[in-house]
Amino acid sequence: MTPYLLVDEAKVRRNIDRLRAHLDAHGTPLRPHVKTAKSVDVARLLFDGGTGPITVSTLREAEAFADEGFTDIVYAVGIAPSKLDRVVALRRRGVDLVVLLDSVVQARAVAEASTASGIAIPALIEVDCDGHRGGVLPGSPEVTAIAAALAGAELRGVLAHAGESYFCYTRDALVKAAEAERAAAVRVAEDLRAAGFACPVVSIGSTPTAHAVADLTGVTEVRAGNFVFFDLVMAGIGVCSVDDIALSVVVTVIGHRPEKGWIMTDGGWMATSRDRGTSRQPTDQGYGLVAPLDGPPFPDLLMTDASQEHGILSMRPGSDRPLPDLPIGTQVRVLPNHACATAAQHDSYRLAGHAGTTWTRVNGW
Amino acid sequence: MTPYLLVDEAKVRRNIDRLRAHLDAHGTPLRPHVKTAKSVDVARLLFDGGTGPITVSTLREAEAFADEGFTDIVYAVGIAPSKLDRVVALRRRGVDLVVLLDSVVQARAVAEASTASGIAIPALIEVDCDGHRGGVLPGSPEVTAIAAALAGAELRGVLAHAGESYFCYTRDALVKAAEAERAAAVRVAEDLRAAGFACPVVSIGSTPTAHAVADLTGVTEVRAGNFVFFDLVMAGIGVCSVDDIALSVVVTVIGHRPEKGWIMTDGGWMATSRDRGTSRQPTDQGYGLVAPLDGPPFPDLLMTDASQEHGILSMRPGSDRPLPDLPIGTQVRVLPNHACATAAQHDSYRLAGHAGTTWTRVNGW
Repeated sequence: MTPYLLVDEAKVRRNIDRLRAHLDAHGTPLRPHVKTAKSVDVARLLFDGGTGPITVSTLREAEAFADEGFTDIVYAVGIAPSKLDRVVALRRRGVDLVVLLDSVVQARAVAEASTASGIAIPALIEVDCDGHRGGVLPGSPEVTAIAAALAGAELRGVLAHAGESYFCYTRDALVKAAEAERAAAVRVAEDLRAAGFACPVVSIGSTPTAHAVADLTGVTEVRAGNFVFFDLVMAGIGVCSVDDIALSVVVTVIGHRPEKGWIMTDGGWMATSRDRGTSRQPTDQGYGLVAPLDGPPFPDLLMTDASQEHGILSMRPGSDRPLPDLPIGTQVRVLPNHACATAAQHDSYRLAGHAGTTWTRVNGW
Repeated sequence: MTPYLLVDEAKVRRNIDRLRAHLDAHGTPLRPHVKTAKSVDVARLLFDGGTGPITVSTLREAEAFADEGFTDIVYAVGIAPSKLDRVVALRRRGVDLVVLLDSVVQARAVAEASTASGIAIPALIEVDCDGHRGGVLPGSPEVTAIAAALAGAELRGVLAHAGESYFCYTRDALVKAAEAERAAAVRVAEDLRAAGFACPVVSIGSTPTAHAVADLTGVTEVRAGNFVFFDLVMAGIGVCSVDDIALSVVVTVIGHRPEKGWIMTDGGWMATSRDRGTSRQPTDQGYGLVAPLDGPPFPDLLMTDASQEHGILSMRPGSDRPLPDLPIGTQVRVLPNHACATAAQHDSYRLAGHAGTTWTRVNGW
């Protein structure tokens, strides 16, 4: 029953193969971020049915994926000291869970938890490569101070994420963002080594930079998450085509307001999320492009507004095309602005062409 | 462990008492919309521990609340014909579930499902009082055509929702929106009666208009949902004060970027939702006002940006106050733009002052 999430498994496989081929050419391992799909079923596709190294955004993900045999995990959100008990519990289970931090305060907390538990918790130092969020600046004296404060724990290496690459609009800008991400991480790793600290891991990545990166010298692993599904934001920055988008929300037409040029559906923001990432891009796609159940989008038809459980479909402003004829009861698909946010509104996926097959998600914290 | 939803039960009770007192003065029953809290525990507070008439936004809510003894339910989203099997199943269980529609096509589908099942499904005709979404226009010939097409089902009455009242900014505008909502619904009910149709129910409401309405002549019930929690959008239009907001998201400080004026937290849009309803109001509150665990908000401190699992706190643009000193590990609360959307990112509530007590939500469809 609508609304529900629909996944095109063939497109997921194609998207995975594309990034794998790119990174294999560089000989660099992928540590996919499972925060987008939050699904063990999708993660298995990433490893040919098996398991492998993953990145998570919550400890709930770490615990759920550990239950399914994924034991090499980076928790890529700066650690809150109160969460270290759960980290220790996972490591006691044999999970190689690695935490992230960018301050001496966090490093001391990790060292104390390591001493108290008798388990040396490994940590990556977050590197700020583009001013997007957290992280230490390359060259900052904070870097070695954090490394020193980790005595008793384990300094595993460094991690950078080029969050600003989501706002690049040319191939050249993406390549530069990828190189800046690599250079910042490698610089901090080299500074640590020069100061006498082992720094085996140099982890970089985001979906845009992972696809654009031309040089991976000094990098030991690449992270990316969104690429399994892709979305309209990624299509807007040219990382994928609309045809690559593997995720959509199926909704049903429940009414018409012809005098307003509106088609009403039973899919509102509860089903799509409030994410309007394309509103900051050159082409604003509203709440999403609208497509038939099987096939490419109707030209110029957008989901233009949303209440909690109502969607409004109308033609793109300025379009001279007529509204398509979609009678009450018709099911259509809405392609998302942001796959991570849209998927998070649901607890499972249905598979296109495989009625009854569902993949579950690991929501919550 | 953060992030999590926190509810102040005393404020919920105060908010309920306020609307009850207002409607009791008019002698008009309340049919609360449970779509905001989606919680049987909150619904019981609305009925002094018992049950009563409710409005739902999904059939999942209808089924879950029916399981807990709520048997008088309006499903206030235009019915998709494919959902009528679940409607019939609920009515077979003894639930007086009423559907909503605004077209002859839907009315025929409801009549056919009634005939096929031997169960007359009751329906309300949706009335458009302000151009916000769906509904028939008062005076339209569609009104009696829909009523006629329901032969074999049951015409229960009419329903209007003043969705545009969310964009009113004066008491006078709110009172006018409430009167327009009442007048439109009563007009359609009178037209139906004049055409020989029984129209026992005249249902109106939204949180802003339910609080502003001065005349309820001809109205048999008032709906409102958001008022149990309230939020910054409601405070922005003057329906409540910031102190009335009963819902917040508890997050933990995980870092600082003093050179940018940023405090980083572990609560991103996954915890708050992407809803930025106040961005269209005179005072933009970012992703929310920030408050200590117990007490009113820090002056001028906002959650100004969000990644999936990261929040950025900073001072309101133009503020000359210093950033408060919130060390790593400090827990703070973020008051939401839109309680319905923020609560939907979680599967339960924790109760302030009652460690360990949780209320569960009914998410999904």
